[in-house]
Amino acid sequence: MESVGVGLLGLGTVGTAVARRLIGEWELLGERAGATPVLRCIAVRDVARSRGIDLKNARLVGDPHAVLADPAVAIVVEAMGGTDPATALIESALRAGKTVVTANKAVIAASGPHLSALAAEHGAHLYFEASVGAGLPIVGLLRGSLLGDRITALDCVINGTTNVILTQMRGAGVSFERALEDAQRRGFAEADPSLDIDGWDAVHKLVILAWLALGGYLPPEQVDRVGIRDVAGNDVAALAELGYRVRLLAHAERAGNGAIHLRVRPTAVGTGHLLHDVDDADNAVIISSDLAGTVMLRGLGAGGASTASAVVSDLVTAIRERGLPSTVNAAMPREPILLGDEDVEVAGYVHVRLSTEADARALVLQALEDRGLPVDAAVDLSGSELIVLTGMAPRAVHDRALETLDTLTSVDQILGALDRVEA
Amino acid sequence: MESVGVGLLGLGTVGTAVARRLIGEWELLGERAGATPVLRCIAVRDVARSRGIDLKNARLVGDPHAVLADPAVAIVVEAMGGTDPATALIESALRAGKTVVTANKAVIAASGPHLSALAAEHGAHLYFEASVGAGLPIVGLLRGSLLGDRITALDCVINGTTNVILTQMRGAGVSFERALEDAQRRGFAEADPSLDIDGWDAVHKLVILAWLALGGYLPPEQVDRVGIRDVAGNDVAALAELGYRVRLLAHAERAGNGAIHLRVRPTAVGTGHLLHDVDDADNAVIISSDLAGTVMLRGLGAGGASTASAVVSDLVTAIRERGLPSTVNAAMPREPILLGDEDVEVAGYVHVRLSTEADARALVLQALEDRGLPVDAAVDLSGSELIVLTGMAPRAVHDRALETLDTLTSVDQILGALDRVEA
Repeated sequence: MESVGVGLLGLGTVGTAVARRLIGEWELLGERAGATPVLRCIAVRDVARSRGIDLKNARLVGDPHAVLADPAVAIVVEAMGGTDPATALIESALRAGKTVVTANKAVIAASGPHLSALAAEHGAHLYFEASVGAGLPIVGLLRGSLLGDRITALDCVINGTTNVILTQMRGAGVSFERALEDAQRRGFAEADPSLDIDGWDAVHKLVILAWLALGGYLPPEQVDRVGIRDVAGNDVAALAELGYRVRLLAHAERAGNGAIHLRVRPTAVGTGHLLHDVDDADNAVIISSDLAGTVMLRGLGAGGASTASAVVSDLVTAIRERGLPSTVNAAMPREPILLGDEDVEVAGYVHVRLSTEADARALVLQALEDRGLPVDAAVDLSGSELIVLTGMAPRAVHDRALETLDTLTSVDQILGALDRVEA
Repeated sequence: MESVGVGLLGLGTVGTAVARRLIGEWELLGERAGATPVLRCIAVRDVARSRGIDLKNARLVGDPHAVLADPAVAIVVEAMGGTDPATALIESALRAGKTVVTANKAVIAASGPHLSALAAEHGAHLYFEASVGAGLPIVGLLRGSLLGDRITALDCVINGTTNVILTQMRGAGVSFERALEDAQRRGFAEADPSLDIDGWDAVHKLVILAWLALGGYLPPEQVDRVGIRDVAGNDVAALAELGYRVRLLAHAERAGNGAIHLRVRPTAVGTGHLLHDVDDADNAVIISSDLAGTVMLRGLGAGGASTASAVVSDLVTAIRERGLPSTVNAAMPREPILLGDEDVEVAGYVHVRLSTEADARALVLQALEDRGLPVDAAVDLSGSELIVLTGMAPRAVHDRALETLDTLTSVDQILGALDRVEA
């Protein structure tokens, strides 16, 4: 059987798991791909270090450019992480006409359309299944299925760290800080957790999914983003009593006029919603589309083995698709029009402490209605606290209503405010 | 842009939805496929009948062979249903080197490997996303993702009719017969429902999925199959009290030695299991694999629009993949080895009415343990009825234990017995 040379950039957890599978299952992979992938060259930081894995005839090199320059390497697997020097290396590989498989969400979120166009220009292909949801094959699904549908929305839980923290806050009744410490101790959060808890990781993944599903690429910094630092343990607990679970929801939608909206925000998810039970490190993506209806994909969103699963699957696909014109992967989108705050409709949750003013409760509810914000339900807690489930209304209406509450003498303090979704 | 001629066999619900999308969205589909699909020729029973759809320049013909013979048709979409004459027509199209897209589960379950080999032989391709789970893109997922994984098991709810009936039995507390009548009235069950309720429909779909996922094709008649006719309303209700929901579970597994096992049986699904909440007409497939872990795909399993979604997606893929060698789709499997009843492990549920014999309850539990069947829990109901949740043991052990119960003077009657799965 024909063989195809593979070069690997990086031999950390993911890289090692990929190498192990390529070497251990070359026969199976070759059968599935139609040609056998053979690991030729691996770039590592320290060439001398022992790695507890028999790399067969693969060369270890210290300079990643040596992998790109190796004439035996037809496909480059990038498993370094970070944008620098990964972006430049991927560009170089594509310019040399080599197909690239990457697990790098930051690179694809920032430069996906540019790199896709570069691949097409040089007769190469670009694959990035592992950049979103690790073992969850959502990239392949969006690229290879539902191709006759118009996808209207995505709703995702795609950051394991924040979901572990929010699950712990609910289960153990603890604060964000305590739950974060716990997640760090258990290995679910980094020492510097800001990329996850400030929502950037979810934003990167959402940008990639929306690019594929809605055909509109939006740079990460333009996504409406709120992290989970300010989610109060009291709110998580109060919402749990009402049947809601707080998740960092990543949502993308395309309106009838073609305008798109992407947001990542902590959101109260109601009972019966498909994301209600997606606890801990599980990931899930719900696709809403015009013919297929609602499709959900759920699975493990992180981990070395599941990320390697995605990388190796891409590698098999890359070998299968060698004969295809690379324009298929280009899909360079037009500049998207964004939905404004007057057009994005959401439901909400507001938690206030009432002042001692007479009729404070009634005045608060009246103020919301006066501002055009429907009230779905109001629940009294002890200590003059009031929870209001606010109905569907434009984001701008919610924001103006919150500003109004902030000025009311009936309100002592706004304790929390979140988005809310129902089944 | 280049165009590709499409021929359509059948203009029923699915065929009409497909035609509508091809004609209404030709520009979008062409952009995604790299060439525009154009409907050239359609075979219908009655050429004269008006259909309330503008078919543009497509010819209506009464003889399906005229579609195959049309030199302008490069891709044939089979949307007739049934095995005869669909199988022969698909064969003819493939022999003529035309690529085929079909929604026909009976044909693919009975002849998938043969037709795939035929396609490869004649330089054509065969696509059948719509044959399983309609809008659920499970076929594409298994063909295009997880390609580096070894899939070890599938667990599926893939028959909407039986799931609607079982959901209704639980919710309304009615018998199988009553729930069936209700499902027929609501359009969820056919006038002759035997294909669904005897498990054949689920068997067909499971055979297709297992062929793709486990690489072992098993003819439908060799699948271990039990339908839902004998599921008692009392058992559904009693299990609901214990947190279980009864579903027609379609399960496939591959053992370490490569042997496979496929079964379709009514099964009590425990709380927390991913299939527990898949009620009514929803479908779901859980894939267990060695690298990716557990992946679930869930969505609408039936309906004209969602089936058309799958057909049109296949059509776009077919156009994209014109340049690929058709061997990719062949994957002619070896003859599978089957796991025997001594090797298939299941947990169970047994419901008996005890006799008036002294110590009847203790004797029943003792008899089960004597037969090597662990008892996980025993629950007493009124009227001397006893429910036993039996633990994991080979199928043969369960069967022998049930035979023993049948002979015990402590047992008045065996009222029900089901498989059981836990989260």
